[in-house]
Formats: sequence, structure tokens, C-alpha cells
Amino acid sequence: MSKYTIAVIVGSLRKDSINAKLATGLARLAPNEFIFEQVQIGDLPLYNQDDDGNQAEPVKRMKAQVAASQGVLFVTPEYNRSIPGVLKNAIDHGSRPYGQSVWPGKPAGVLGVSPGAIGTALAQQHLRTILAHLDMPTLGQPEGFIRASDGLIDASGNIGPDSKDFLQKWVNAYVGWVKKHAG
Amino acid sequence: MSKYTIAVIVGSLRKDSINAKLATGLARLAPNEFIFEQVQIGDLPLYNQDDDGNQAEPVKRMKAQVAASQGVLFVTPEYNRSIPGVLKNAIDHGSRPYGQSVWPGKPAGVLGVSPGAIGTALAQQHLRTILAHLDMPTLGQPEGFIRASDGLIDASGNIGPDSKDFLQKWVNAYVGWVKKHAG
Repeated sequence: MSKYTIAVIVGSLRKDSINAKLATGLARLAPNEFIFEQVQIGDLPLYNQDDDGNQAEPVKRMKAQVAASQGVLFVTPEYNRSIPGVLKNAIDHGSRPYGQSVWPGKPAGVLGVSPGAIGTALAQQHLRTILAHLDMPTLGQPEGFIRASDGLIDASGNIGPDSKDFLQKWVNAYVGWVKKHAG
Repeated sequence: MSKYTIAVIVGSLRKDSINAKLATGLARLAPNEFIFEQVQIGDLPLYNQDDDGNQAEPVKRMKAQVAASQGVLFVTPEYNRSIPGVLKNAIDHGSRPYGQSVWPGKPAGVLGVSPGAIGTALAQQHLRTILAHLDMPTLGQPEGFIRASDGLIDASGNIGPDSKDFLQKWVNAYVGWVKKHAG
């Protein structure tokens, strides 16, 4: 059985990030042939084009991890009606130097959870604009604009009953998308 | 004569940033009562909500500088069809913690220059979405989608003849905007 490694990029550095918990819960809904690995982005420097010829070790590590993956899952909060600077900084690093972007062709999924009613919808729109430019085939439907609720993640870290059917459907669609587009 | 201090935020950390040069050239087109001060954003940490109660010194410094200003001028490149992560990270810091954002009410101007034909147009659209949420009154017209050319900035750091009329008009409009909305 072939294995698929998915690079998971969470847009929040907060220790108790609900998006990080969602990412963990989602991974448990995937078939065994899928392995979800979180990508560390909190130790990246701020992107500076002057360093393109000499990327920092954390940048090289992130790029190698993404390059070795069969897909990239973005799970992100919305900050000020866009994606967090932390996430965009990681994306900028991965796209450089010119001609050495790690993103093209990696099948992408976009999800997010927030306390607000729109559930990261505007952040996801900005992210989709960026991912199109990066030439990442990105799953369209189902869209997941998830509002944080007490039961979203249960005490064991699994997706709670209210959201499980929807998110299982989402994971199934993403798994199919990765198989279609990977390698 | 009252003085107006404008906090200038450049979206690129590159030493020879054409956007930084544009910002310097623009400042020379403004009347004497306007003082343009660049805001350092390259030493900010990556935003982490866990630090909201204990913001780092560079964050406090940036917030104090913006708070003391009568307007904020954003001059930014476009990275991957959006604003640089570096710039969004600074914006995210300034907006936190909840209820202590420095941005509301500060009259904003948005400009950018890039080698490409669209001249940062998509980055500016994303930025306008964010600035609206931050409740910054933002100059609408003239829009400035500037394509980098050899003559944009002359050897002395002034705006070159091909762009000077347009950018003088832009600065005049921004000066009027700041006077209308400041304080």
C-alpha cells in the first residue's frame, strides 16, 4: 500500500490553538495510508530577500519537509480578516528563491476554525488567492468554515459528534484529491 | 503650525528595497509640517497570542510609535499575490491584545511598487480588507499601482520626472486626508 505524507501547517503558534487541535482530530479521520506531520513554522526568521542565497536552517528544514510530502493541509485562524502573518511568512519562505518554490503541484486543503460566525471565511479567501499563484491544486468543496464550539473536540482530542459527519466528508474529499493530484 | 508625524511601514526588509526608496522619495514631496518616520518591523517576533499579556519590547516600541503618529503610510511589495508575511505580522502585533489595537482611527495611505505589470494591486486589495477591519480610514483615490522602472528614483533618492507629477498628486491627496481625519 502506498503511503501519503501530508504536511500540516497550522496558522497559529498558540499552545492551546483550537486550529492545532482540529488538525489533530482531522488526522484521526483519515485512512491508515495517510500520515499527517505538523510542520514547525514558529522558529522561522522573518523573510528577507537578502537571505535568498543563504536560507536559514529552519527554512531549509521546512522546505525539505514540504518537498517530501504528497500534500499540504492548511488549518488556520483568521487574524484581522486575513491569514496570520506567521502563516504568510512561512509561505513566503517556501516560495523562494525564485524558481525553487516547494509549493507547486502539492495538493492543498484549506480549513479553519474561529470563535466568530464567519469561521475564517475571509482568511480562507485570501489564502486561496495565494495558493492559486503558488500553483497548488486546492480542494474546492466541501468548504469548511468552522465555528468553535465546546463540543468540536472531545476530551480525547477526537472530533465531537456534532461536527464529525461533516469533517469525515471533508477528509474523504481531501484524501481523494491528494490521490488524484499527488506525484 | 501643527506638525503631523506619519508612521511609515515598509513591507520589505531587503536592504535595497525599492519600496523603502519610494517611501523616502514620497516624504520629500510632502509639506514641511509633515514628518515621515520609518517604523522598524524587522526585529518583531512572530506573533503568538500566548504573549498578549507580555508583549516583547520591539512590539511595545512599534505600538508606541504608531500611537504617537497622526497617520500611517504603508508602502509594500506584493509577495505571492498578497502582502508580505513580515507586514502582516506587524499588523497582527499592533492589533493585540483585544481592545488595545493601535490602528483604529489612524488615517492610512497604501502604495506599492513592483517589477510586475500589476504593481502590487492584489497585495493592496488584501491590505485594504485588513485596514477596513482595523477601522483605519484609508485614502481611496488616487490609487498607486507602481511598476518599477529605472527612472522611478533618481541618483539623489528623489522621485524621477516620469512619476513625479502622479506621486505629488498622491501625496497632496494623502496630506489632505490626514488633516481631515487626524485627531
